[in-house]
Amino acid sequence: MTEATSNESGRNNPIEFYFDFSSPYGYFAATRISTLAKKFGRTVLWKPFLIGAVLKVTGGTPLPSVPLKGEYHGRDMKRVSRLWQIPYQQPSKFPIGGQAPARIVYWLQEHHPDKVETAILALFHAYFVEDRDISDPEVAADVVASLHLNKDELVAVTQAPEIKARLKQECDAAIEKGVFGSPFMIVDGEPFWGTDRLEHVEKWLETGGF
Amino acid sequence: MTEATSNESGRNNPIEFYFDFSSPYGYFAATRISTLAKKFGRTVLWKPFLIGAVLKVTGGTPLPSVPLKGEYHGRDMKRVSRLWQIPYQQPSKFPIGGQAPARIVYWLQEHHPDKVETAILALFHAYFVEDRDISDPEVAADVVASLHLNKDELVAVTQAPEIKARLKQECDAAIEKGVFGSPFMIVDGEPFWGTDRLEHVEKWLETGGF
Repeated sequence: MTEATSNESGRNNPIEFYFDFSSPYGYFAATRISTLAKKFGRTVLWKPFLIGAVLKVTGGTPLPSVPLKGEYHGRDMKRVSRLWQIPYQQPSKFPIGGQAPARIVYWLQEHHPDKVETAILALFHAYFVEDRDISDPEVAADVVASLHLNKDELVAVTQAPEIKARLKQECDAAIEKGVFGSPFMIVDGEPFWGTDRLEHVEKWLETGGF
Repeated sequence: MTEATSNESGRNNPIEFYFDFSSPYGYFAATRISTLAKKFGRTVLWKPFLIGAVLKVTGGTPLPSVPLKGEYHGRDMKRVSRLWQIPYQQPSKFPIGGQAPARIVYWLQEHHPDKVETAILALFHAYFVEDRDISDPEVAADVVASLHLNKDELVAVTQAPEIKARLKQECDAAIEKGVFGSPFMIVDGEPFWGTDRLEHVEKWLETGGF
């Protein structure tokens, strides 16, 4: 984990928002982070990554496979969705690999930065509400093409060597920063893990750190 | 995990509060659970258990030893203590085995039920504020003896075969109920894990379930 840099000069750094497209808690937090950031004049730097790459480092097991914990979380996810009133349906294929949607997002950041957030929320909605398998490049491209983009170009993006390399670099950089779960937020160098830390993030922004 | 029984008859079941004496998040939640319970006319059923026994089932690693995650949590614990204004100092020996204090608690439940909560909070304070090693039966007994109890009797309790058996049973029963972390709360059959779920517990009690 990198050193705390909560005293970084300037207080308008974007909130770094790390998430895996297969993460229900990442989805829940993604629906709220933007509003939270705006409240404090911040922007969101969207950082999709692959939780599988991190689990290799931490020696962890994908949540659904952990005895007791996996079952609990299946229940907790539904409960959080009811509490926050966010539509959620356990996808029939779960978890999935987030390569295709994550690559599209990094490509959008270069070419259509104004569509990044909408695309992410549309992809999450497709997976966690409509049960569409966004790990399939065709499906991910189809979802994002609805934002007036060319579907064939988006499919190609998911296989482009330079975008593949970019995602790989982003995963390495995330691990370097200490990111080990989804969602994971970094605010002025301060790391926060989990949807349940959104209110700590808010308090942090409100007070300038505590 | 047992079936949901949120429709159990009656709404005055105690809140089952599972915790490990070596768990900072267990300590933080322990300082609040009683006030929360009282607000809804509930009592707390204190259930110390040994996280080590659970990790054997879930295949987990003690938190401080997990790469990235361990470091993060060392930081998060201090941050939660500042946010909640609860005194906390990382103990020099951490984690520790919770056998001695847990056995004393189960003995108190039989013989001095009115002292259970005070004893638990005193033990947590000794470990997480005064850096006393409560895994040592002498130390645990000394802390609890301050509640006008006999220290020698308390030391003996930590070695009594029937109390040892009781703690073993309690750990098995906890696993049976799906408890895999500390703190873990069960409210009318509904399981909640983590200090950050205290407000979900509150909402649950307020609304009768959601």
